[in-house]
Formats: sequence, structure tokens, C-alpha cells
Amino acid sequence: MTSTADLLITNGIVMTMDPHGRIIENGAVAVCGEIIAAVGSATEVGSMAAKETIDAAGGIIMPGLVNTHTHAAMTLFRGLADDLPLVTWLNEHIFPAEALLDEGKVHAGTLLGCAEMILSGTTCFCDMYLFEAAVARAVKAAGMRAVVGEVLYDFPSPNYGPIRKGFDYTRQLINDWHNDPLVTIAVEPHSPYLCAPDLLTEAADIAREHRVPLVIHLSETLKEVHDIQKKYGTTPVGHLANLGVLGADLLACHCVMLNDTDMELLLQHDVKVSHNPESNMKLASGVSPVADLLDRGVCIGLGTDGCSSNNNLDMFAEMDMAAKLHKASRLDPTVMNAATVLRMATIDGARALGLDGITGSIETGKRADIIVIDTRKPHLTPMYHPASHLVYAVGGSDVCATVINGRVLMKDRRLMHMDLEKIMADAWQIAESIRGH
Amino acid sequence: MTSTADLLITNGIVMTMDPHGRIIENGAVAVCGEIIAAVGSATEVGSMAAKETIDAAGGIIMPGLVNTHTHAAMTLFRGLADDLPLVTWLNEHIFPAEALLDEGKVHAGTLLGCAEMILSGTTCFCDMYLFEAAVARAVKAAGMRAVVGEVLYDFPSPNYGPIRKGFDYTRQLINDWHNDPLVTIAVEPHSPYLCAPDLLTEAADIAREHRVPLVIHLSETLKEVHDIQKKYGTTPVGHLANLGVLGADLLACHCVMLNDTDMELLLQHDVKVSHNPESNMKLASGVSPVADLLDRGVCIGLGTDGCSSNNNLDMFAEMDMAAKLHKASRLDPTVMNAATVLRMATIDGARALGLDGITGSIETGKRADIIVIDTRKPHLTPMYHPASHLVYAVGGSDVCATVINGRVLMKDRRLMHMDLEKIMADAWQIAESIRGH
Repeated sequence: MTSTADLLITNGIVMTMDPHGRIIENGAVAVCGEIIAAVGSATEVGSMAAKETIDAAGGIIMPGLVNTHTHAAMTLFRGLADDLPLVTWLNEHIFPAEALLDEGKVHAGTLLGCAEMILSGTTCFCDMYLFEAAVARAVKAAGMRAVVGEVLYDFPSPNYGPIRKGFDYTRQLINDWHNDPLVTIAVEPHSPYLCAPDLLTEAADIAREHRVPLVIHLSETLKEVHDIQKKYGTTPVGHLANLGVLGADLLACHCVMLNDTDMELLLQHDVKVSHNPESNMKLASGVSPVADLLDRGVCIGLGTDGCSSNNNLDMFAEMDMAAKLHKASRLDPTVMNAATVLRMATIDGARALGLDGITGSIETGKRADIIVIDTRKPHLTPMYHPASHLVYAVGGSDVCATVINGRVLMKDRRLMHMDLEKIMADAWQIAESIRGH
Repeated sequence: MTSTADLLITNGIVMTMDPHGRIIENGAVAVCGEIIAAVGSATEVGSMAAKETIDAAGGIIMPGLVNTHTHAAMTLFRGLADDLPLVTWLNEHIFPAEALLDEGKVHAGTLLGCAEMILSGTTCFCDMYLFEAAVARAVKAAGMRAVVGEVLYDFPSPNYGPIRKGFDYTRQLINDWHNDPLVTIAVEPHSPYLCAPDLLTEAADIAREHRVPLVIHLSETLKEVHDIQKKYGTTPVGHLANLGVLGADLLACHCVMLNDTDMELLLQHDVKVSHNPESNMKLASGVSPVADLLDRGVCIGLGTDGCSSNNNLDMFAEMDMAAKLHKASRLDPTVMNAATVLRMATIDGARALGLDGITGSIETGKRADIIVIDTRKPHLTPMYHPASHLVYAVGGSDVCATVINGRVLMKDRRLMHMDLEKIMADAWQIAESIRGH
């Protein structure tokens, strides 16, 4: 512990999310540079000298939330089309809108997504989209932590063109962002149904050669399972297993339709799963067997998916949904308890992204990715158990401070380093061009 | 239209929720006394002289939300116990806590609930609990609109004692609040499983004699269905039908477990249904066949239920949940579209409470129960369709003004006529006594 901290967050209940699940009733966290220097009682750690102090005022101090699956720039399509059959929604609304995208629009949409995430307590996210070089730059400009990767598929991309160039583009991203403190590049083949076997194995090879994460949509719908079964004689998970793509570095998003063999394969290969309940519900994909996966010991993070199927990036709403959905689905009120869901949104999400060594919990030596919840509100009064409040009562707008990599990005609901008026004006302008098309 | 309004709300998208579903892109609403005097364009109606003006700043002006089922004072037990089997939860946590209640505590808890509701855009609610004279007084003090009724059941009540006195207490409430502009008294037998047939028929007789609503929990769980089937040889709905209790004045809360005959009976008798998805999910009661009920033409309102099974009173979160749950449950993304869910939370909810003549929509001559949504936020940017935003993206904290019966109760997130600090301090003090017990 150094004697003077750069930042001190004190006078709150510290939910460390460390391996012991330690909760410090009246605690404080000291930050030096990017790093958490001390975690302890408000009387001890809280008495340190500090250049800047955030008073949690009896609220909750916790690790920033980790959104394991989104397409941040799709904030531009928020509410463009809802309540439609999947094929109509994609072909008549989303694909035509996406055809209008370019680097500038994706940069603008990602900045908007980052602003929303910082304001709602998300400090780290995993992105899959087009023009990811622009996404990486927007993430860096926003000061967020993210795993970003260009989506790869068989047909020509509006960004890189043919898949050969997609691999080059991905390698270039990996090279450009090597050792960046905030941005990690991933290799991101879209899905078994949009990627030929050769694409999938080459993507896995690149990821493993460079030791970066591999991210894919997997077993999202019954149609995908039927199509893959017809084409390859096995399930989407079985197909990836046959190709040697399953591994501890693979993040499989959605995993709604799984049989017992699929679940065993995911466990055996230590595949990480991103659970996206709101998107799966809104698109009527179904209910992922998350409680079964947890029982088996599969690591699961939470994700919001894109804003066109949610329609926001609020991880607190996602936690509430995750906790409730599986209770109704299994007719068991004890599944997905608050503590479990809270881990999924923090430390387990970090582990799913391969970042649990640096984020996802408040522990000395980790990067300071920390948020503060203002609990002095009627809908958070009284409070018996902080974990219950975080999952069942808090909303993103209750976050009153967001710190990423030691830097205070939001305080008292104000973004400190982003021009929010300009970001929103840019998004409106792009929306006008989409609407007019 | 008078030439000077008491209150003018202008410069917003007016979602009238009137029978034509009229949306005024740049609209205004003028209020004289308690009454909506004019609804129209910002250029026309918005140019009226007014004693007070609220600038919606391009946001959404809409009717206040109607919460058709809650137990407002249970805010005191928010997060006291979660993720437990129903019997453990009730017997070891909720019932012991409720045994500590008295008039003062219920008054304090109801004030807290009213504060939360006003801040999250609910202008009218239906309450069922103990010590409802205190609830009615708290509602009146808060300035809200509500239907309130003392819960009636076979065993002795901590409030009124034996059921005879419960009927007297209810009659007294009806008498005391006759013709009140804000408070309507209802007769509220708890449920078919806690009320003997005689209690149910007498409750219905009192309601019909005084022409006040009748409210009941109905068919909430599979256990209830099994128990009633065993005892009376029919379903809970069939049981009420046999007793002559079904009617257009009956609000049946939950209705999770219904067969085809039950649904036909509810339709035939024009029974109104309160759908409480978050509570039904959290308690693992199941999924109400709401889409089937809607197809048949049953009138359905939304409700949050109490804070111990939700754990907040945010009707925007309830809308989001209602819209998504049934898509996942029916594997159909077109059910429960945004417009339908929005009606359930406004005009259909008002109809469920028998109050659609005075609230639930923005129409000339109705009481001014109006809220304004501030859309100048990243998570509400851009906006293509206001109904989509209201259901899928807005949260209670985005409400920036709440008007009930012509009176501005909240503006810029500040309660104008309630001492919020005292209300929260009182709730904390009561929580300490519950925790210590």
C-alpha cells in the first residue's frame, strides 16, 4: 500500500466479487495509476491521502460490469424494427440499414454505445461487428476496456470484401493493438451457419497462433440446429467439436439450443458461454439451459446483444431478466440466485473473455474497473442484502460513478471525457439517413 | 378550450392512447384544474397562455401508467428474502415480518411506494393489503390515484380481527371515501384458497351493493389449482363461476394457470385480468397465457405485485418483461408487440380498474394524469418509434415530470409535495426493527 493514492472510493459497501465473495460493510478502495492498491475498511483504507476522492455515501462499490456479447454500433438501429419474424426483421430492416454503414457511422454508433455503457456501469465489453478498426478507435477514445473483432463469414463483407482479406484485416488488428492496455483483439467467425468449415478452422488457427480469444454465435435458434444437422449430420456444437474449434479460448454466444451431448462437449473443452436472455426472448429464440450449464460447471457470462434486439445495453436489466427467466422456465424459485447472477455479470464474464486476471473483481493488483451505486433512492430503500438490490432493483441509471483502468469516466451521471451532445447529434443524423432510405 | 390553462405541457410527442391510437408528433396538452382541456399541436395548443408550463424538450408526453396490482407497503420488505421456495419465503420471512406491521408502518411503507411510483411514472395503482385505511390516507397525502381495499380472508386479521369485522371495516372505508376524487375503495377477498365460499359471495354482494370494484388473487400457482380442484371439484375460475362471483367488476390478479374453459369463463363474464410477469417469474409460479387471453378479447392490465417479489414498482421494467416473456414462451416474436403492451400499462389497466372514464389516456375531459419522458439520453438515442422506446428502452428514471389529477407531483426528478428524506429515513428505521427481530 502506498501512502498517497491517486483515487480513493470510500464510505460504501464493497462487493469485491473476489474468490471468497468478500463483502466489506463500510469499505474503501484505493487506486494508484491503473491499479487497485488497497481494499479494506473505510476507517483504514478510507483514511489514506488521495488526489481525488469519491464518496459512495453509503452506496455500493463494486467491479464494473462485463458485457460479454454486443454489437455496440447497433445503437444506431435501436427500435428501428421490433416484434417481427426473424427473417422479415433481418431482410427488410437490419440488412438494408447495415448496407448503409461505413467506418464513420460505426465509429459514431460505437461511441454512442460506449456512452450508454459507461453511464449504466459497464466497464468492459466484447464486440462483434463490421469495421472493427473504427470500433477499436472508438473504445480507446471512450476509455473503455473491450474485446473487439471483425465479423468473418463466407459472403463478401461491406468492409473487407472476400474472406481472405477478412483474415488479413483481423491479423492487422491483432498487430495494431498488440499489448494495448484497454483493447484486446479477438478472431470472430460469425456462426456455423454463415461460415464454411475451412473458415472456422482457419479462424481458430489464427486465434491460437496469436493467443487471442475466439468468439462465435453458436446454437442460437432451432433453425440453426436443423440446418447444421442437415448439412453436417451433427449439432452446431458437435460440428465445432469435429473441426477442433472448441477450446478454453472460445466464447460461444447464445447457446440457446443445446442437448446433453452439447453441454458435455462445452464443459469438456472449457468453452465459455455468453448468455443473452433479453435478445433470446425478444427474437423468440427460446430459453438457454443456463441452470443446467451452471450445474455442470460451465463458465457463463452475461451479454446484452445488440440494441436492435434488446433495446438497450443496461446490464442491470439483463441481470434481472436472467435471474427471473430461468425461475419461470424451470418452475424453481431457487435457480439463478442473486449471487450467481452477479458473478455472471462481473468475474465470470471477465473469465469468459480471458480477462479475469485484470478485471471483474475488486482485488489488490487488478486494474481499477470500479463502479459506485447510489442507493439513496426510494426504489432502493430499505436495503437488507446488497446482492439482491443489484440484481432485482438497481437500474443502470443508479450508477453514480464509473472508473475504468483507474480513470474516472463518469461522476454524478456526467461523462467526464466525452462530448455527449455531439455523440447524440451524430447518431440522430445517421438515423435520419437510415429512416429516409 | 379556455384561453388560459393552469398547466401546459408542450413540445413533445403526445402518445394519446385514445381509441384511435393518435400520436401527435409535435404536440401539447393543456390542463384546467383537474381536467385535460385541450390536446393538439404544439403550434396551436402549445401557444395557449398558461400559469405553468412544462417543456417536454422533444420527449414523450403520455398518460401516466396504471399499476393494476401491488401491495405498496411491501416496499418495507424489498429484498428481505429472495430465491427461496414459496413456502420457506412466506413462512420464515414474509409472514413473520408482516406480524410486526401496524397502521403507522403500513402508512410509512405506502408513502415510500407512492414516492417510488410517482418517480417512475405510475399515476394510478390498485392496492391490496392490511390496514388499508392508512393506505388510503397515504395515497391521499401523496396525491396519487388509487383503488384500495382491505385484504379479507378466513383467519383472523392483524388489523380487523374476525372476518365479520373485515366486512365492517370495508363498509366503513367505502363510506369514508365515497366520491373522493383520488381514492376508490374496492372489496378484496384474498383468493379462493384463503377464503371460504361464504366469504367470497358476501364480498361480491358488498361490492355489487356499493358498485365498487372486486379484486382477488386467482389461479396464481399450480398448487392453488390442485387444492381447489380437490376441495371443490373444479378450477379456481370454475369455483368463482359456480359461486356467482365472476363479473365485469372483478379484477382477477395473476391468472397464471388457466385452461380453455377458464379463459372462456373470464371472457363471458368480462372479468378483468391483472398480469404480473415479474412476480410470476421470480416466484416461479409460471407463465400466464396472456397472448391467448388477448386473442380471445379479455381486458388485461399490467401489475408489479409487491416489492418482495419483484423487487421494484417500475412499470417500464414490467412492460419490457411482459413484451419479451411471451415471445420466448410462445417462440413467436410477433406476440405482445409494443403497442399492445403499452395499452396494457395505460388505458387497458384503467379499464381493468373501472377508471377508463377518467384516466389511462390523454383525451379532452379526462383527469390530467400525465407523464413526460426525457429522451435526451444515450440509451434513448436515436428514436424511430416512440412506442418501441417506451416498452423496450425507457426505464422509470427517464420520467422527468408526473402530473396527477392536474397537479404537478414530480418535476426534473424532484418530488414537489413529499418529504422524501423523511420517508426514506422512516423506512430504514422500520427495516432495522424487522431485521433485528
